[in-house]
Amino acid sequence: YERVCVFGTGDMGRSLGLRLLQAGYGVVFGSRRPHSSSLLPHRAQVLGHAAAAQSAHLIFIAVQREHYDFLVPLANQLKGKVLVDLSNNLRKNQYPEANAEYLQSLVPGAEVVKGFNTLSAWALQNGPSDANRQVYICGESAEAKQAVMAVATKLGFSALDRGSLSAAWELEDFPLQLFPQWRLPLRIAIGLCAAFFFYLLIRDIIYSYITQGKDISFRIMVSLANKVCPIVSLIMLSLCYLPGVLASFLQLYRGTKYRRFPDWLDRWMLCRKQLGLLALGFAFLHVLYTLIIPIRYYVRFKSTERTVSLIRENRTTEFDTTMAWRGDSYLSLGILGFGLYVLLGITSLPSVSNALSWREFSFVQSKLGHLTLLLCTAHTYLYGWNKFLRSSTYKWYTPPGYMLCLVLPSVVLLLKLLLITPCVDRTITRIRQGWE
Amino acid sequence: YERVCVFGTGDMGRSLGLRLLQAGYGVVFGSRRPHSSSLLPHRAQVLGHAAAAQSAHLIFIAVQREHYDFLVPLANQLKGKVLVDLSNNLRKNQYPEANAEYLQSLVPGAEVVKGFNTLSAWALQNGPSDANRQVYICGESAEAKQAVMAVATKLGFSALDRGSLSAAWELEDFPLQLFPQWRLPLRIAIGLCAAFFFYLLIRDIIYSYITQGKDISFRIMVSLANKVCPIVSLIMLSLCYLPGVLASFLQLYRGTKYRRFPDWLDRWMLCRKQLGLLALGFAFLHVLYTLIIPIRYYVRFKSTERTVSLIRENRTTEFDTTMAWRGDSYLSLGILGFGLYVLLGITSLPSVSNALSWREFSFVQSKLGHLTLLLCTAHTYLYGWNKFLRSSTYKWYTPPGYMLCLVLPSVVLLLKLLLITPCVDRTITRIRQGWE
Amino acid sequence: YERVCVFGTGDMGRSLGLRLLQAGYGVVFGSRRPHSSSLLPHRAQVLGHAAAAQSAHLIFIAVQREHYDFLVPLANQLKGKVLVDLSNNLRKNQYPEANAEYLQSLVPGAEVVKGFNTLSAWALQNGPSDANRQVYICGESAEAKQAVMAVATKLGFSALDRGSLSAAWELEDFPLQLFPQWRLPLRIAIGLCAAFFFYLLIRDIIYSYITQGKDISFRIMVSLANKVCPIVSLIMLSLCYLPGVLASFLQLYRGTKYRRFPDWLDRWMLCRKQLGLLALGFAFLHVLYTLIIPIRYYVRFKSTERTVSLIRENRTTEFDTTMAWRGDSYLSLGILGFGLYVLLGITSLPSVSNALSWREFSFVQSKLGHLTLLLCTAHTYLYGWNKFLRSSTYKWYTPPGYMLCLVLPSVVLLLKLLLITPCVDRTITRIRQGWE
Ligand SMILES: Cc1cc2nc3c(=O)[nH]c(=O)nc-3n(C[C@H](O)[C@H](O)[C@H](O)COP(=O)(O)OP(=O)(O)OC[C@H]3O[C@@H](n4cnc5c(N)ncnc54)[C@H](O)[C@@H]3O)c2cc1C
Ligand SMILES: Cc1cc2nc3c(=O)[nH]c(=O)nc-3n(C[C@H](O)[C@H](O)[C@H](O)COP(=O)(O)OP(=O)(O)OC[C@H]3O[C@@H](n4cnc5c(N)ncnc54)[C@H](O)[C@@H]3O)c2cc1C
Ligand SMILES: Cc1cc2nc3c(=O)[nH]c(=O)nc-3n(C[C@H](O)[C@H](O)[C@H](O)COP(=O)(O)OP(=O)(O)OC[C@H]3O[C@@H](n4cnc5c(N)ncnc54)[C@H](O)[C@@H]3O)c2cc1C
Ligand SMILES: NC(=O)c1ccc[n+]([C@@H]2O[C@H](COP(=O)([O-])OP(=O)(O)OC[C@H]3O[C@@H](n4cnc5c(N)ncnc54)[C@H](OP(=O)(O)O)[C@@H]3O)[C@@H](O)[C@H]2O)c1
Ligand SMILES: NC(=O)c1ccc[n+]([C@@H]2O[C@H](COP(=O)([O-])OP(=O)(O)OC[C@H]3O[C@@H](n4cnc5c(N)ncnc54)[C@H](OP(=O)(O)O)[C@@H]3O)[C@@H](O)[C@H]2O)c1
Ligand SMILES: NC(=O)c1ccc[n+]([C@@H]2O[C@H](COP(=O)([O-])OP(=O)(O)OC[C@H]3O[C@@H](n4cnc5c(N)ncnc54)[C@H](OP(=O)(O)O)[C@@H]3O)[C@@H](O)[C@H]2O)c1
Ligand SMILES: CCCCCCCCCCCCCCCC(=O)OC[C@H](COP(=O)(O)O)OC(=O)CCCCCCCCCCCCCCC
Ligand SMILES: CCCCCCCCCCCCCCCC(=O)OC[C@H](COP(=O)(O)O)OC(=O)CCCCCCCCCCCCCCC
Ligand SMILES: CCCCCCCCCCCCCCCC(=O)OC[C@H](COP(=O)(O)O)OC(=O)CCCCCCCCCCCCCCC
Ligand code: HEM
Ligand code: HEM
Ligand code: HEM
Repeated sequence: YERVCVFGTGDMGRSLGLRLLQAGYGVVFGSRRPHSSSLLPHRAQVLGHAAAAQSAHLIFIAVQREHYDFLVPLANQLKGKVLVDLSNNLRKNQYPEANAEYLQSLVPGAEVVKGFNTLSAWALQNGPSDANRQVYICGESAEAKQAVMAVATKLGFSALDRGSLSAAWELEDFPLQLFPQWRLPLRIAIGLCAAFFFYLLIRDIIYSYITQGKDISFRIMVSLANKVCPIVSLIMLSLCYLPGVLASFLQLYRGTKYRRFPDWLDRWMLCRKQLGLLALGFAFLHVLYTLIIPIRYYVRFKSTERTVSLIRENRTTEFDTTMAWRGDSYLSLGILGFGLYVLLGITSLPSVSNALSWREFSFVQSKLGHLTLLLCTAHTYLYGWNKFLRSSTYKWYTPPGYMLCLVLPSVVLLLKLLLITPCVDRTITRIRQGWE
Repeated sequence: YERVCVFGTGDMGRSLGLRLLQAGYGVVFGSRRPHSSSLLPHRAQVLGHAAAAQSAHLIFIAVQREHYDFLVPLANQLKGKVLVDLSNNLRKNQYPEANAEYLQSLVPGAEVVKGFNTLSAWALQNGPSDANRQVYICGESAEAKQAVMAVATKLGFSALDRGSLSAAWELEDFPLQLFPQWRLPLRIAIGLCAAFFFYLLIRDIIYSYITQGKDISFRIMVSLANKVCPIVSLIMLSLCYLPGVLASFLQLYRGTKYRRFPDWLDRWMLCRKQLGLLALGFAFLHVLYTLIIPIRYYVRFKSTERTVSLIRENRTTEFDTTMAWRGDSYLSLGILGFGLYVLLGITSLPSVSNALSWREFSFVQSKLGHLTLLLCTAHTYLYGWNKFLRSSTYKWYTPPGYMLCLVLPSVVLLLKLLLITPCVDRTITRIRQGWE
Repeated sequence: YERVCVFGTGDMGRSLGLRLLQAGYGVVFGSRRPHSSSLLPHRAQVLGHAAAAQSAHLIFIAVQREHYDFLVPLANQLKGKVLVDLSNNLRKNQYPEANAEYLQSLVPGAEVVKGFNTLSAWALQNGPSDANRQVYICGESAEAKQAVMAVATKLGFSALDRGSLSAAWELEDFPLQLFPQWRLPLRIAIGLCAAFFFYLLIRDIIYSYITQGKDISFRIMVSLANKVCPIVSLIMLSLCYLPGVLASFLQLYRGTKYRRFPDWLDRWMLCRKQLGLLALGFAFLHVLYTLIIPIRYYVRFKSTERTVSLIRENRTTEFDTTMAWRGDSYLSLGILGFGLYVLLGITSLPSVSNALSWREFSFVQSKLGHLTLLLCTAHTYLYGWNKFLRSSTYKWYTPPGYMLCLVLPSVVLLLKLLLITPCVDRTITRIRQGWE
């Protein structure tokens, strides 16, 4: 078997050593105190740094960057060796140069390869299950990278070469990222939520307090939440399909596909997945909030009160077939829309979308996606029904939330309808095939 | 670094070039108008076709098949080069021979490899995330294929060799497929839906219109949907477990496993996954339709009416413990059944089923699957309860839907019961182990 | 193309042969009766064992271990060949030595490699889709393993070297495992369920039977289930976050991270994922049981009865705003908690967690996980509300279930609160960075 050296007997060094041993490598640890380390795997050898370095060609440096200076005196022994820099920083731009470049400058005779830093010691030790986890690697020397990639592959990772050592800072930024692609969609979601929350707070609760002196603030918890959630969901769903429509019109207008979209449109298109998934989250909350309606104290109270007053005042009610049709229809449309919504969510799971061909994926995401938007919009229209015409709907001359949120989806659907009329469709297909 | 050439500066050429550059290759584009291309990545070189061809051994042809004739004059420069044909067609059997074979015939001196055509330009450009996406490759020359596979691997794809160039038409068909395995199950689902929809329409709505003159057509939207969905779901669930039972009986009857199953059985067994997932979709809709029952206008109206009439007619109702037991039991069985159903769905996600050993997967799918069927069947029996015996159930002498849908699951469960009796089980185990 | 030999024309041999042919290998079967095999793929050659062995360097032994003795007479022809042992046993420790070691002892001149036994014949034949399925391999000779791994890779599997032949028994145990990591969590779940079931049975149903003579046993099916499920879910959720807190305190107490945790803590920490997913399952059932409440016969009966008695006794009820606030709040907290719960579940799908960086994963699992626990605990406190103070709550001097289940989560949350106070947090961060 081949021998590999690991400098540092901390969490990372230990975990890495264990995995290397499991994969059949011989492991030599280099430590400051070779005799005091109790947690190391039995089959590993522990030596001083210099001795350890001599026993192997490949050396993993599992030591914090702050302590790299201990390598300077070893420069001679490290000449020609491959040093793998695993280190991460605590925050972005902590140091002027990347850790790997710093290491290279300390030991110019060695061949430094950056890599493995995206793994965690904990996962390395416990998780042999996820073999398609990727490992990124960069460095100047092709052979050195080759050697490191071979080790990575044998440990069950799939290694990806990211070029020369100047890419090291990128690799060092990876573990510090926290959902960079979700930031814009999250901000949009929070903005919309806040805006509609205050709008509806004023329209529903404060209005009723001021005009009728009734305190119905308890409605914030469920009724209001159950308006904000679906409204935000519907708007974000349409924001998901708006850029595609805009792009098509832009192509139509330009008459060619060989020009880059404006930057904002590009960025928008790249975060549609996140927009859509957040929209699904809000729809999910809407559904739960809707399903608990009949359990609520307020609703049960009202229902009893209505029955009681019916009897006390000796009134009768007539069954209204239109109401029944409308009510059942909007519920049914909502359910179908939500079913498709969940389907869109399922197909965006990485393992499912990988199993689909491009045509299948875009059939689901584009065709069924627009159908989802249509169903959800129809659900909301039917829910509004004839309230659009009643003036009592417009408290303080403001339209209710569901009316506001219908604007964007209606526009998107109308534009889409235009795009799929045969003549426009033909033109656009021609453009997309490169026949200008 | 190695140099690679790409002919064509369209979407595909550009995206591919970008990815190649990111992976550390040098990229030379071959274009008709080398100086007018504005969207290309900066680090790439753009030359005429002939010049570009000379600079690299591997050439990706990112040009539509229709324009391949521009390669004929280049035949000399292309001698001995590896040409990767990326092209797709718009529909199946558009041309008599595969594009790659056509390319080979145009440039007989080159070594043509088909591949990469299953990717999309959009995904190539934006999605470095999905590295386990597969790339299929075929071609005559082993070294040529090796070279292309090396590139694919370096780009982060896992390449699969599909044999000689005669497999090219298969690879060209991949991107045109639209859920081929879902076709049969979808047809079954649609057929069953339509059949039960009309059956129940007649039995419930038209019957009441004709015999009592009442228009209850509003029930189509929810009540009817909430009968069709669970009925179809239950039937499809049993269709999922029927072929396994049939196969076992066939093996018992034949006394050996060394004979192929009839073709129809084989095909049926291969679409059980899809049958099961569609059944889950219908069950999901059933659950949603059920949960909104108390919100429906009709239901609230009826409930008020009942209370009102109770009081006006001064009747009292007795609490019926049997009804309570039965009602709660069938709901509880439905919930447990649905929980297991979802579990079956989760374990059929590719990433989850990959993490399971074969024994675990078939424990869940086969053992828990039959349990699911049992629970759902019991749920429906308890729902039917004593209505089976009342003659008023049989309007126009037809049985209600839930009775019809119980036939198949009952048969499957009975046959399965037979199969797991010790003596039959022993025989079948012996047969499956090859001890005839 | 290369030629490969397969001994045995059973299920496994046939399926393997088919896949090998598809991947471009030439396949020669070795069979006892070379002329009677009808199910074999057309392009394969079928010979006697000796002849077949001579035609290839690599031989897959797709024959049960019980029949390995037929290889003894072939020892000469097999000298220097690579024999791949695919065999599995029916149960653990069926034989004293691993099958592969037995094979090696029978044919000492050959190089035995264990591998491929974790696949199933059925999956091999039908599933070219899952290419990231892993294949484990072990053996003495590095070249032999290399050859087998090359075949595995070409078949579309990712091969993992597990070391020397002494690891064979481990590989042979893989296919016999049935959810080993789920065992402890499942036992805990069953234990908790049983304990709370009997506790609540006595407190709710038997108590009412004994003290008031009322038979409310029908409540077992839904009401009782809807207490046991959320209680067990909440306890298991807190069991999921308890070990992390304990570990932190241990590190604080010891003042160093360089000492191994006690074994029980290590084992506990390794089954948190399973604990969490089971807890999610119970929460899911709780939600379904809750949502069907208004459909239940009992609930509808009670509601009608209440209205009727209101009218008959000519009482009025007052709307209680506090009740409305409290009721809506606990439902809302439950919904948000459940939403986050589902999010935790989604991120633990292998394909999703692979797409996340370590920082992202632990942000969701640790930060949002504690938030989930907080929301669910608050949900339960608000549900209990002022019942904590009423003596009627303590039937037979026992506290109700939700009170019992609040103990553990409250403790976990309190300890966590301690840990995130700035001064403790600073100390612990220092310890974890290795600055003792
Ligand atoms: C729950 C949910 C989950 C989602 N998950 C995902 C997901 O996983 N991934 C994802 O991407 N989106 C996802 N989305 C967002 C959305 O469904 C998709 O982006 C969808 O494909 C958009 O369809 P479209 O028809 O608007 O856009 P597209 O079909 O992408 O077309 C948009 C426009 O872009 C231009 N265009 C696209 N391709 C090309 C090309 N090759 N050449 C030139 N121009 C081109 C065209 O002008 C086209 O009109 C999700 C949405 C939801 C609600
Ligand atoms: C929600 C849902 C999801 C589902 N997802 C999946 C899925 O992902 N994948 C999937 O395959 N199915 C899926 N199914 C379908 C179904 O659950 C499985 O196919 C299940 O394994 C069938 O179990 P069985 O016991 O009937 O068949 P099996 O256990 O496959 O046995 C069927 C019969 O086939 C024969 N047979 C099987 N293996 C062999 C063998 N090695 N040698 C000889 N004969 C053999 C035997 O005669 C056996 O009786 C799903 C179903 C549902 C409801
Ligand atoms: C629905 C659901 C799904 C779940 N899925 C998963 C899952 O997929 N995977 C999973 O692991 N858990 C899963 N869990 C369990 C749980 O959410 C996680 O384990 C979570 O990370 C625990 O967070 P924590 O803050 O308690 O522990 P951690 O953040 O792991 O920390 C626990 C303690 O361990 C010690 N520790 C951890 N890392 C180190 C280190 N590098 N060096 C030294 N000490 C260290 C520290 O003392 C730390 O306080 C799931 C839970 C639920 C409810
Ligand atoms: N932990 C992770 O999850 C993780 C993940 C990715 C990357 N990394 C990176 O891996 C490196 C090590 O992390 P870690 O968590 O293992 O740290 P750690 O547990 O603190 O271990 C660091 C080790 O470095 C050695 N060391 C400390 N001071 C030294 C000095 N002055 N001179 C020489 N050696 C010294 C020590 O080993 P001896 O006592 O044997 O000399 C010590 O055990 C860091 O760069 C980190 O960014 C860690
Ligand atoms: N787009 C995809 O998602 C995708 C996916 C898989 C496979 N493919 C395949 O890739 C190929 C290219 O697709 P594409 O979408 O990139 O097409 P495209 O955008 O239309 O680009 C085609 C390019 O081919 C060149 N070209 C056009 N006419 C030519 C001619 N007469 N002679 C020589 N070169 C000519 C042009 O480049 P110059 O102007 O530089 O000469 C043009 O940019 C097609 O075969 C397609 O099936 C595409
Ligand atoms: N089936 C699976 O899913 C699976 C999965 C993993 C591993 N395996 C392993 O693969 C091996 C074969 O399994 P299988 O399911 O294919 O079994 P099988 O269907 O019973 O086939 C066994 C084959 O071995 C040959 N054979 C039987 N008795 C023999 C004897 N006395 N001498 C020489 N050859 C004899 C026969 O082929 P001829 O008639 O041509 O000689 C027979 O077809 C077993 O070790 C099993 O553990 C199977
Ligand atoms: C209007 C219809 C609404 C239906 C909505 C619902 C649910 C499930 C339907 C499954 C659809 C799967 C499409 C797969 C596309 C495909 O081809 O996918 C193909 C892939 C790959 O298959 P192969 O590996 O066989 O090639 O198959 C799959 O990935 C299977 C996905 C299974 C998904 C099940 C997830 C269940 C999770 C629970 C969700 C519901 C919870 C509800 C709680 C109240
Ligand atoms: C009667 C019980 C009903 C329970 C139903 C419910 C839900 C979730 C239970 C999780 C079960 C996971 C089984 C995994 C099998 C396995 O071993 O799987 C093993 C794998 C691999 O694990 P390793 O990578 O650790 O080896 O683990 C997993 O894949 C985890 C799967 C997590 C799935 C969570 C999905 C949540 C989606 C939301 C569904 C519910 C929505 C409801 C909306 C109303
Ligand atoms: C309080 C909020 C509650 C919200 C709960 C709900 C639902 C869905 C929200 C999606 C969240 C996705 C987080 C992904 C993390 C990430 O970055 O993930 C990143 C990955 C990888 O993305 P890339 O491949 O683009 O890098 O993306 C994903 O994996 C997408 C996951 C999609 C999951 C959808 C699953 C839907 C299943 C149905 C569940 C609900 C059923 C309800 C039935 C009643
Ligand atoms: C199971 C599926 C669904 C059901 C049962 C359902 C049910 C309902 C109900 C009962 C209402 C009225 C709420 C109230 O009285 O305050 C409503 C409103 C609404 N729904 Fe849905 N719905 C579903 C899915 C969806 C989906 C997927 C969307 C899309 C985003 C959506 C968007 C809306 C909107 C915008 C409103 C108006 C909110 C308002 O301002 O009051 N619904 N839905
Ligand atoms: C959460 C789980 C479930 C609940 C709460 C539930 C509840 C119900 C209810 C209330 C009915 C009566 C509907 C009516 O009055 O019209 C019903 C009917 C039925 N359910 Fe379910 N169910 C569940 C899951 C399932 C599942 C998983 C199946 C299996 C496919 C199923 C199959 C059926 C069938 C076949 C009927 C009879 C339909 C008919 O009226 O003809 N149910 N269920
Ligand atoms: C959609 C989300 C949820 C809703 C609508 C909900 C609703 C309810 C309701 C109505 C009750 C009272 C049940 C009864 O009257 O018997 C309850 C009790 C309870 N819930 Fe939830 N809940 C949700 C999520 C959760 C979650 C995620 C947990 C965490 C595990 C949880 C834990 C509990 C507990 C411990 C009880 C007390 C059970 C008892 O009666 O002893 N709930 N919930």
